[in-house]
Amino acid sequence: MTAKKREEEDARVGDIGGEFALIKRLTESQQITDPDVIIGVGDDCAVIYKDDDTYLLVTADMMVEDDHFSRVWYTPEQVGGKLVESNVSDIVSMGGAPRHGIISMSLPAQTTLSFFDRLYEGIYASARRHGLSIIGGDTTRGDNLVLNLTLIGEVKRTLLRTRAMAREGDLICVTGTLGKSMGGLRMLMSGTGGDRSGHLEPRARTWEEAHVIAAHAHAMIDVSDGLASEVAHICEQSDTGAVIYRGMIPLAPAAVTAAEALHESAYDYALYGGEDFELVFTIPEREVDALRAEFDDFTIVGRVTARSEGTALVIDGTREPLREGFDHFL
Amino acid sequence: MTAKKREEEDARVGDIGGEFALIKRLTESQQITDPDVIIGVGDDCAVIYKDDDTYLLVTADMMVEDDHFSRVWYTPEQVGGKLVESNVSDIVSMGGAPRHGIISMSLPAQTTLSFFDRLYEGIYASARRHGLSIIGGDTTRGDNLVLNLTLIGEVKRTLLRTRAMAREGDLICVTGTLGKSMGGLRMLMSGTGGDRSGHLEPRARTWEEAHVIAAHAHAMIDVSDGLASEVAHICEQSDTGAVIYRGMIPLAPAAVTAAEALHESAYDYALYGGEDFELVFTIPEREVDALRAEFDDFTIVGRVTARSEGTALVIDGTREPLREGFDHFL
Repeated sequence: MTAKKREEEDARVGDIGGEFALIKRLTESQQITDPDVIIGVGDDCAVIYKDDDTYLLVTADMMVEDDHFSRVWYTPEQVGGKLVESNVSDIVSMGGAPRHGIISMSLPAQTTLSFFDRLYEGIYASARRHGLSIIGGDTTRGDNLVLNLTLIGEVKRTLLRTRAMAREGDLICVTGTLGKSMGGLRMLMSGTGGDRSGHLEPRARTWEEAHVIAAHAHAMIDVSDGLASEVAHICEQSDTGAVIYRGMIPLAPAAVTAAEALHESAYDYALYGGEDFELVFTIPEREVDALRAEFDDFTIVGRVTARSEGTALVIDGTREPLREGFDHFL
Repeated sequence: MTAKKREEEDARVGDIGGEFALIKRLTESQQITDPDVIIGVGDDCAVIYKDDDTYLLVTADMMVEDDHFSRVWYTPEQVGGKLVESNVSDIVSMGGAPRHGIISMSLPAQTTLSFFDRLYEGIYASARRHGLSIIGGDTTRGDNLVLNLTLIGEVKRTLLRTRAMAREGDLICVTGTLGKSMGGLRMLMSGTGGDRSGHLEPRARTWEEAHVIAAHAHAMIDVSDGLASEVAHICEQSDTGAVIYRGMIPLAPAAVTAAEALHESAYDYALYGGEDFELVFTIPEREVDALRAEFDDFTIVGRVTARSEGTALVIDGTREPLREGFDHFL
């Protein structure tokens, strides 16, 4: 074994540049030969052939107490809700509808039944909102509360939207408002008063909304790591560049409130904060009016450019490179 | 709130009789209305309609370090292998073939890349053995190493076998030998020399074997909690009784070695030990020879009886009630 090789083997997962680097490392070590796997690791969901008109979408999210949530801040219902909404967001971001969820959890032995029941109330409330069924689970003991939801959805083949479908010249749009999750988190961390619901009770867009958007859009992704990171993913997968106009980003009122109180930038919350679970999509200019006639809760924030132009953020007319956002291992 | 109700809410999940009680508690709180859900919580897998000839099978298992495995005993490859084999066993126990897996893991930041790579080598080796693809994953940070695999398989509608399909008069059979997992564990715990591979490197039966068995069998389940527990599940779901003849149970050599060294009972390992990942099935007597012509690695250990006869274990001609096995929360 060479010294370099040994050094790499002794390296820690915390050293290699985050979750995406780990996933990439694992993807590269496997060749998927199953022709039914349309898309493997690398998008919000894996995509599997179901029949000639329909693909299955599969996604999983694991939430660890005191890393993803604290019981000091979250009610049990909010923990359960966030677990479901974060997974639903991955399904709808590809144009699909969530159908069937399977939950695994590790529970400390001292967990109260009341906590368990309220957690499930939150899970079921979000499941009902999005029309999905919880079909199975595995509960086990552990020192920490760890929750995993694997969610299976379906998408019409013609409505499948990925990170790789952006085309030069497309407009870049976001639904709703951004920065509310990080705004809420900053309020919680600092004890600042205000609306923390964007962090504690995030809501995924519905599959009905995603269907309408998908019918007009090219690429689509959800905001789980901040707008900057999502735009970078689109550009990387679509082999394009992008320009985002910071002043056009629709800021959530809670983000503005928190940022003002803490002398921070609400734009930073939107760009690098994550977990807003809004949709980012690219759309040909000619489709914008048609979409707006059916769904108008979106804002144009930029444009897809040539790969050679890179990814840029324009602030008050000044162009700078778009840096990426939050990562669980950074 | 009544005093009784408050007492119940303050109860701990460790108090209410284990994992099955928790799952039952959660199942009862939800009515699944989706007609595509053929079987929800309650069998080895959930069963979902795919097309008129095919159902999807979905199962999940979570493994927590120092509860399910210790890195003192397991190599990283063995941890990864066990994660896949335990899930594959749930799929094949219903007559299906594993197809697509999605892995979530919480990793302590000090986890080495070498550990991560070797873990995946174990995962991929078992995936190749069973012909399944790992299609996605979520990695996140946590204080403990926690692994979850959700596995999606397929079963021909005509080959679907459940815990509920046993009929009075069926013979009860098990594949291979039992007690090897608990035998290996007891060797590890006591420092006794011998073959620990039944605990460290369990192997699920293949889907090809399960197909052959399913074509002749009625009910089927895998041995994840010991023969006694699996037979009890079959009886509960099939509304039958059963009698098991202890002397007919095929004991693994490693179980016998460990039990002799430790002055314990190898039959107890088989009945209450769990994680052998063999198949327990019930079969009409007239089908036994036909099955044996195609697959003969099984042993008759008892018979399905009327519900009114309960579940019994016959030891040297003396009949006693069959008590159940290991539970993660006991």
